[in-house]
Amino acid sequence: MLKLFYSNIMNEIIGDNGLSLKDFESLDTDKVIKMIKLKQYDELAFIDLPQQQTSEIKEIAKIAYEFDNFLLIGIGGSALGPRSIVEALSPYHNLRKTPKVFIYDNVDPLTLSTIFELIDLKKTLINVISKSGSTAETAASFMIVWQKLKERGISPQKNMIITTDPKKGNLRKIVNDYNLKSLPIDPKVVGRYSVLSPVGLLTAQIIGVNCEELLLGAEDITQKCILQKLWDNPALLLSSAIYLLDKKFNRNVTVMLPYTDRLKSFSEWFCQLWAESLGKQGKGLTPYPSVGTTDQHSQLQAWMEGLQQYVVIFISLNDYKADFQFPDIFNDIDGLNYLRGHSLAELIKIEQEATEIALSKNGKPSLTINIPSVDGYYLGQLFHLFSIATAMTGFYYGVNPFNQPGVEEGKDLTYGMMGKKGYENKKEEFTHYREKKYKYSI
Amino acid sequence: MLKLFYSNIMNEIIGDNGLSLKDFESLDTDKVIKMIKLKQYDELAFIDLPQQQTSEIKEIAKIAYEFDNFLLIGIGGSALGPRSIVEALSPYHNLRKTPKVFIYDNVDPLTLSTIFELIDLKKTLINVISKSGSTAETAASFMIVWQKLKERGISPQKNMIITTDPKKGNLRKIVNDYNLKSLPIDPKVVGRYSVLSPVGLLTAQIIGVNCEELLLGAEDITQKCILQKLWDNPALLLSSAIYLLDKKFNRNVTVMLPYTDRLKSFSEWFCQLWAESLGKQGKGLTPYPSVGTTDQHSQLQAWMEGLQQYVVIFISLNDYKADFQFPDIFNDIDGLNYLRGHSLAELIKIEQEATEIALSKNGKPSLTINIPSVDGYYLGQLFHLFSIATAMTGFYYGVNPFNQPGVEEGKDLTYGMMGKKGYENKKEEFTHYREKKYKYSI
Repeated sequence: MLKLFYSNIMNEIIGDNGLSLKDFESLDTDKVIKMIKLKQYDELAFIDLPQQQTSEIKEIAKIAYEFDNFLLIGIGGSALGPRSIVEALSPYHNLRKTPKVFIYDNVDPLTLSTIFELIDLKKTLINVISKSGSTAETAASFMIVWQKLKERGISPQKNMIITTDPKKGNLRKIVNDYNLKSLPIDPKVVGRYSVLSPVGLLTAQIIGVNCEELLLGAEDITQKCILQKLWDNPALLLSSAIYLLDKKFNRNVTVMLPYTDRLKSFSEWFCQLWAESLGKQGKGLTPYPSVGTTDQHSQLQAWMEGLQQYVVIFISLNDYKADFQFPDIFNDIDGLNYLRGHSLAELIKIEQEATEIALSKNGKPSLTINIPSVDGYYLGQLFHLFSIATAMTGFYYGVNPFNQPGVEEGKDLTYGMMGKKGYENKKEEFTHYREKKYKYSI
Repeated sequence: MLKLFYSNIMNEIIGDNGLSLKDFESLDTDKVIKMIKLKQYDELAFIDLPQQQTSEIKEIAKIAYEFDNFLLIGIGGSALGPRSIVEALSPYHNLRKTPKVFIYDNVDPLTLSTIFELIDLKKTLINVISKSGSTAETAASFMIVWQKLKERGISPQKNMIITTDPKKGNLRKIVNDYNLKSLPIDPKVVGRYSVLSPVGLLTAQIIGVNCEELLLGAEDITQKCILQKLWDNPALLLSSAIYLLDKKFNRNVTVMLPYTDRLKSFSEWFCQLWAESLGKQGKGLTPYPSVGTTDQHSQLQAWMEGLQQYVVIFISLNDYKADFQFPDIFNDIDGLNYLRGHSLAELIKIEQEATEIALSKNGKPSLTINIPSVDGYYLGQLFHLFSIATAMTGFYYGVNPFNQPGVEEGKDLTYGMMGKKGYENKKEEFTHYREKKYKYSI
């Protein structure tokens, strides 16, 4: 089981910037646990994802093994989860294994044309992911790819899977009209909480991970995350600590800092979850996607001596699955010879702890999650721990962690300019604002 | 020339959250320009990088063309600049071109072992970059690679370049002792401001970009960035606006949001520059690395309705160098048929503007930098614009934008645990703190 160390948020350890046991007592943790357990939002359905059947996913994955490439088209939660799975569990995948995985999560035409240049569509399985079936970016890419298949005489029935709502939406209609392969996304599971649905699991299975390992990890951590007692429940402790550090000290930037390259995309997955779930009604917490040791040479200066704004969440790792002893060379050079007798894994682990200690000495709060290794099981634990903790944090702030009303305006303006029916007034508004933009410029 | 649009920070456009012309008049812009022009810090030497000779860089790049792989070992400024050049100017480089480029900017042993598995060292040119020559992570990787070369009977004289201080440091000593190829880094140029030194230029040249294009772009924008008049000077306007939005409204998170996948790493380059230069003396601004349209489905919710903390810097692009017309299909589906008659490049450009307008309507400040295309020339402009603007912002806050005193403590603790001479007391301290860590955990 992953471990959560939280000494470095306590005033006993870090001084005046820390929390007391009393601070925690002020929280109504029972209410939060009750909301989780009674599923007071339908969208808490994501917690039960570990119970799903995976046979359909495994069947489709088998088909994928016959292809050279797997092209995923999706954006936001439909892409960040799958990408973090690939990078964590099969680093440098495309240089080492097939099917190669391409994730197109933007509408940058050059990226798409580069992908078309790199892959033979005939040998490519395409997975289009959008729960609603109406995400503009995904719909746009889907239509272009569909047309390309048509031009090349490739059958979508063979080369395409649609991952969408089991009943509703444009994509489901197309699945039915054209008899396409498809996977369902439970309508109650919101995009950013969907990594352990078919959205992420199919990719996991395709890169050679048994997707049930992820679910098993998620299931095991869930058992701890529904415990009533704060001091036994890592999700509750995490959300309580972060909420209190903001309320008490205005620390509203949450840094996700795993000490392994393999979890860099995991940090980005977390950033969507955190920002979109909490940032509403003038409230929220700003996430920051980091990676150690690299960001010791980029962000650490600011965390140590900049604004009193940061709470750092370290992820430390025991087994890096590789190591190198430092050789017995350059003994005459003082700046190098101290490494002898040590190893690279030792160095990265010591740097992680040293950074934690440096922050602590300086009165800067941090939490540390330790995992034995980066594999499907522990990645499943991390996904579910943070998904549950994010919902809980939303409950503390009194916001709905499952909606995203703030993105509608931009969508509507886009619809207006693209000529979607019913959005004519948005086109006018767009044009009006565009003129203003040109007033001040250099 | 790039253009800077700043209507959406003005109260005339966005209302009470915006700035007035009077706000700008309160600033001593003359003083800032004077500091830049008179080079009141030696480290402002980076401004003159466009004048450097590039013949040596080009000679070494020619050697690189004989290799299958180019392995760069460096961290922080030594890696973020080169990586942003590769991703911007040669997307998906390793799937398309040789020499393949690997950038090892961490001490994760699995990453290194994966790189060793993927490349034949005999066919690899290795570039070790550290100005001081004593960066622990770079030194560590250097030693392991050196030993590997030795074991395989490969001569470092043939397969290695060292990029370091022209006279001082461990790496320079090794260059001299072993007669290695090397490139100099001007001792006055700080790591995070060094992308247009040999640090970044060699990589540019190796991936097939004429490095002088970057310098020409930088030179041209510099001419605008030293103009006395605020309203003519994009770097001064940028830094003044961001400083004022913080002072007046406490907006202390700066979001870098280019609308192209190719500038994703550029955002990360910016984040180091911004965080490490400004985050000191309890002051600073928190950067956030973003990319559009992707982050409309990740971060936009928080910028629109979350904390009143953000200033968004858009980078918009005119020519995506590729495009796709939406096909005339699925006419019966309302959620798709509005795309017909449009193109993918049109969509991404409209989404960029729609997001800008949605923020503006909602009273949220943003700036937009427009570039005609992503090429060496405009990337050079962006690098120098933001480098100069960062220094200027530091001057407004009254901090030294060229040092990073806050990272020393972590280094010293690491030295202590690794047994470096003179750091024995740090080892004790480390052990003492480590014990405390175990007090509170789940």
